[in-house]
Amino acid sequence: MVRSLAWQTDCLRLLNQTALPGSTEYIDCRDWRRVAEAIRRLEVRGAPAIGAAAAFGLVLGARELVGRPGDFRSALLKVAEELRSTRPTAVNLFWAIDRMLAAADRCSGDAEPAAVMSALEKEAVAIAREDEAVNRRISENGAALFPPGSAVLTHCNAGALATVAFGTALGVIGEAWRQGRISRVFADETRPLLQGARLTAWELHQAGIPVTLITDNMAGWVMQRGMVQAAIVGADRITANGDVANKIGTYSVAVLAREHGIPFYVAAPVSTFDFSLDSGADIPIEERGPAEVTSLGGVRTAPDGIEVFNPAFDVTPNRLVTAIITEHGVLRAPYREAIAALRDKKGGN
Amino acid sequence: MVRSLAWQTDCLRLLNQTALPGSTEYIDCRDWRRVAEAIRRLEVRGAPAIGAAAAFGLVLGARELVGRPGDFRSALLKVAEELRSTRPTAVNLFWAIDRMLAAADRCSGDAEPAAVMSALEKEAVAIAREDEAVNRRISENGAALFPPGSAVLTHCNAGALATVAFGTALGVIGEAWRQGRISRVFADETRPLLQGARLTAWELHQAGIPVTLITDNMAGWVMQRGMVQAAIVGADRITANGDVANKIGTYSVAVLAREHGIPFYVAAPVSTFDFSLDSGADIPIEERGPAEVTSLGGVRTAPDGIEVFNPAFDVTPNRLVTAIITEHGVLRAPYREAIAALRDKKGGN
Repeated sequence: MVRSLAWQTDCLRLLNQTALPGSTEYIDCRDWRRVAEAIRRLEVRGAPAIGAAAAFGLVLGARELVGRPGDFRSALLKVAEELRSTRPTAVNLFWAIDRMLAAADRCSGDAEPAAVMSALEKEAVAIAREDEAVNRRISENGAALFPPGSAVLTHCNAGALATVAFGTALGVIGEAWRQGRISRVFADETRPLLQGARLTAWELHQAGIPVTLITDNMAGWVMQRGMVQAAIVGADRITANGDVANKIGTYSVAVLAREHGIPFYVAAPVSTFDFSLDSGADIPIEERGPAEVTSLGGVRTAPDGIEVFNPAFDVTPNRLVTAIITEHGVLRAPYREAIAALRDKKGGN
Repeated sequence: MVRSLAWQTDCLRLLNQTALPGSTEYIDCRDWRRVAEAIRRLEVRGAPAIGAAAAFGLVLGARELVGRPGDFRSALLKVAEELRSTRPTAVNLFWAIDRMLAAADRCSGDAEPAAVMSALEKEAVAIAREDEAVNRRISENGAALFPPGSAVLTHCNAGALATVAFGTALGVIGEAWRQGRISRVFADETRPLLQGARLTAWELHQAGIPVTLITDNMAGWVMQRGMVQAAIVGADRITANGDVANKIGTYSVAVLAREHGIPFYVAAPVSTFDFSLDSGADIPIEERGPAEVTSLGGVRTAPDGIEVFNPAFDVTPNRLVTAIITEHGVLRAPYREAIAALRDKKGGN
């Protein structure tokens, strides 16, 4: 199975997802600043993968600070804040940083920086390992939702590449395919950055799962023609009422699914839930630069000087979400109660 | 104003729309086969422009046949059939060919081929001139629908480039903008061939009309955020019940518009109506090759060997269409009666 990231004692090896599928390149990050840059540039992307990458970034930051003059803990907090500022929408990033800082706090006040660093490394490794286990459980919980022989539509990439292993939505798809429940996947290409074409189509093709690539604007027609029986996506942040922030275009898929009477499923670990936000209206939506829209692979596709609106995410209201598949089971409306019951389980502690 | 085509006595000059906006190139077609090729390759596209181009293509065909041995009329019919076969969905192509053949039939049975050719040239010029006049009337009829200061969304390109002049949906937008009724246009980029990014954004930018380019999957979010108050598109074929075939993705825009309580307008000349088809289910939908989806501007964006579904058009059911703007006025539901009343006006004769 493809790996988005691997911790190698003194460096975080990232698979450069911006180069896929054309070439398989790795980025060996020995400096936490390079990890922050990789998150910003989307060389590593996908909410759970970003969380794990940031955790290892903090380990690299701690390593740099050991033996340096000045206050170790306040310097570590500065690194944490820098990592935290890389992307605003996915909550796993903040969750992972918070969990790492809590691990540091559990060290006694007079612990040597080296001991704190060691505790941080253990915690980052635990975050990564848990993500694997969590995704296995999500896959099993979700697979049961699909009647045998279903064709499904997915948007963006919520696969192994978006996580530490297996994936969320693609984890479910893989498990359901092994069980004969899913027979084919329609993958939205997911402009502007084509995570569906470049990453999802590639992952599924590698896994031998039948996949048909479409442009985003074909999703409605595919549903209208009866070519898919369900839609399933990942999530970047889910609020206390069950609203779901995910890659731009997810909202349109959810509206179209509702129009066609097709279930719309979200697969996400508890770490993707933001219990502190009441609804999706409170989620900051990252806007990215115009070049992502006006060009593709270095080819300019729009006239010079054109204005662009480029939100990286949108919010799907809970009323359009048929179910949310988590490692602790499948949540259904009313979401507020179901999500409140999850709250104690967040953080794995 | 930009011109998609110009008749130059012995040749049809086409603006090569596949090269826009990067470069402005013209194709001088002196052979009808080159016109057929240009239609197939989408060097000329847009239902009304295709109709006019095919009409001039038939003139070039007739010119080649004059003085040749063999039966002029049966050879002309063969050329007509070849031109007819270039693209299956837009009805203006068939309408223009039929109208040209009717003009030939009006020549007496013993008319010289040169006289028939001259009649054909007159008819093609008339088709082109009428398209200009028709689009002016569509623009005026449609502009009145927009309250002052509206922002609108459009999909694909129904502009001057898609017609002989002015455009249909973009003609309405241009007139409404001059009247202060439209303040901004959001243009869907319209994958796979990016007619929105390459052509619509370019046309509007050239005309000084404020335009914001978005990817197709942002349309729902733009509506959800209240950034547009209406959607307007062109059409490739409208059936007797008011179902509308148009560029792939139009159906999704219509569903999203309905979800957000936003009017969805279609602007099209009477030549786009196919009175012989009862509903959209009868419209043949062109499917194009996979390379349009798996690459962009020569850049490969998906893994090798991936399956692709690439319908060039979709059908929007009449229930999602707020109004159809024609040169004879604005049609509203129930469409079957409104469209039956139009039937006598088709053909301009």
